[in-house]
Amino acid sequence: MPLPFPQRFRALARERSPLCVGVDPSAESLKAWGLSDDVSGLRAFCERLVAVAAPLVAVMKPQAAFFERHGPEGMAVLRDTVAAIQRRGTLALIDVKSGDIGSTVIAYGDAYLGPNSAYRGDAMTVSPYLGLAALGPIFDRARSAGGGVFVVVRSSNPEGGALQRAMMADGRSVAEQLADDIAAANGSEIGPIGAVVGATLGAEAGALAARMPNALLLVPGIGAQGATIADVRRDFGPHYARVIPSVSRGIARAGPDPAALRKAVEHLAEPLAAT
Amino acid sequence: MPLPFPQRFRALARERSPLCVGVDPSAESLKAWGLSDDVSGLRAFCERLVAVAAPLVAVMKPQAAFFERHGPEGMAVLRDTVAAIQRRGTLALIDVKSGDIGSTVIAYGDAYLGPNSAYRGDAMTVSPYLGLAALGPIFDRARSAGGGVFVVVRSSNPEGGALQRAMMADGRSVAEQLADDIAAANGSEIGPIGAVVGATLGAEAGALAARMPNALLLVPGIGAQGATIADVRRDFGPHYARVIPSVSRGIARAGPDPAALRKAVEHLAEPLAAT
Repeated sequence: MPLPFPQRFRALARERSPLCVGVDPSAESLKAWGLSDDVSGLRAFCERLVAVAAPLVAVMKPQAAFFERHGPEGMAVLRDTVAAIQRRGTLALIDVKSGDIGSTVIAYGDAYLGPNSAYRGDAMTVSPYLGLAALGPIFDRARSAGGGVFVVVRSSNPEGGALQRAMMADGRSVAEQLADDIAAANGSEIGPIGAVVGATLGAEAGALAARMPNALLLVPGIGAQGATIADVRRDFGPHYARVIPSVSRGIARAGPDPAALRKAVEHLAEPLAAT
Repeated sequence: MPLPFPQRFRALARERSPLCVGVDPSAESLKAWGLSDDVSGLRAFCERLVAVAAPLVAVMKPQAAFFERHGPEGMAVLRDTVAAIQRRGTLALIDVKSGDIGSTVIAYGDAYLGPNSAYRGDAMTVSPYLGLAALGPIFDRARSAGGGVFVVVRSSNPEGGALQRAMMADGRSVAEQLADDIAAANGSEIGPIGAVVGATLGAEAGALAARMPNALLLVPGIGAQGATIADVRRDFGPHYARVIPSVSRGIARAGPDPAALRKAVEHLAEPLAAT
C-alpha cells in the first residue's frame, strides 16, 4: 500500500511545489493548441502538458468529462495520462465528481481510486448531493488504498451558492455541515478526506477551512476564474498550509509551446515552493 | 433529430409499459449470475438482460459506475449496451449523475446525450450540487438533441434527506426549489428536464411532483429498496401518469435464467401497461 495521500502530498509540496495543474482538454483547448478534436488530439494535448508540468508540481488533475466525451478510446487516454503523471513521481487526482449510494459508490472506488482500481488514481473528487454518509464506502477505500477523496463542499461558481448555503435543521449551512462531518471522519491527523473549496469565496473560504483543520483543501478557480494565489493566501489565512492551489486554463492557454508552458507553470509553482 | 424524449417515452409506455429496467452489473450481481467479474462477465450480463427485458419496457437504465470499474474496455460494453437497448426500440437512459460547470458540463453532454454523443444515450442523469443553473448547457443539448436529462432532486436513501431538505433563503427546501426551477425551465408542455425522486418518500414525493407538473419523474428504489408499485401509485397520486418506475436488483435477482427473468419483468411491466 502507498503512504497515505496527505503524506505523499506534503513531501512533494516541500520538494517541488504544492501546485495542482489541471488537465482540461476541452474542445476549445484542443483547438487553441492547433490539435484535432479527436482521440489523437486528446492524446497529444495530455502528453505535452504532462511532460512539461508534472515534474514541477505535486499534483495533476485530469478532468474526466473531457476524456469521456471521446468514448472508450478517450478513457484509454485517461488511463495512460494517469500513468504518465505518476511516472514523473506526481500525484494523479481524477476530477470526476462521482456520487451515488451503496454498491454504486463502491464501484466508483473500483474505477478510480488506488493502485488496484481501473484508472489507478491517487485521489478523486466526489459530489455529496446524496449525503456525505452515503459516500462511506469510498472513504473506506481511500483509507485502505492510501488514496485521497475530495468532496465538493463549496464551489466558486455563482449558481452553486444558494444550495450550498442552504440551512440544515440545526442552523448550519449545507457546506458547514459537510465541513464538520469531514473533520469528524478524518480523525486526529490530516486524513484521506479532503474538501473542494472555490478560490473566489473571500472570508467564507477561511471560515470553512477552520471547521476542518484535519483536511486538505483543493482550491480550483485560480487564474481563469479570476482569483490569484495572493487572494487564496489571504482568504485561507492560517489554513493556507493545507491548500492545494489548482490552476487549469491559466496554464493551458500559455501552450502549446513547451518553453512557454514551462514558464507559466514555473511562474505559479516557484513562489509557492518558496513559502 | 429524434422526437422529444417525453413523446418517445409516452408512445412506448402506451405500447409496452412505462417500466424502466436498470442494468446494474455490480460485482455482486455478476457473481450471483455465475459470471466472472471481468469484461467478459460484464458483457454477458448486459447482453442477457437486454435481450429479455428491452422488448418489454419503455426504458433501460445502465448504471455507468459498473462499466467504469472495468476501465476503457468496460466503457466499450456500455456503448454496446446502449446500442443493444436501442436496437429493440427501447430508450437508453445512462445513469451517471454527472455535475459540474461551464465547459465541463458541455463535455458531459458530448459524452452521453443524443445521437451525436460518444455513448448516444437517449437520456442521462445529472447531480445538482453546483446549482441547477450551472447545468444549463446540458439542458440546451437535451432540447436540441431530443434527449432527456433527469436531475437528482430527492433520493430515497436516508443519508440524503438532511441536505435535500435544507432551507434556502426564501423558505423553500433545496428539493422544492429544484422542482420549481425544473418546472420553470421546461415551459408549457412536458419538457426535456425530468427529476429523480425516490420511491420511499411517502407524501413528500407527491408534493414535489405537484410543483413540476411538466416534468417526467424517474422513480428508482422499487423492489430491492422496499417500495412497491402500489406504494408509488399511492404516493404520487394524480401525478402517477408522469412516473417512470425503475427497478434494478428486483429484476436481476430473478436471473440468469431467461424464462425466470422474463417472468419477473412481465410481472412488473404488465399491470403497469394495463393502467
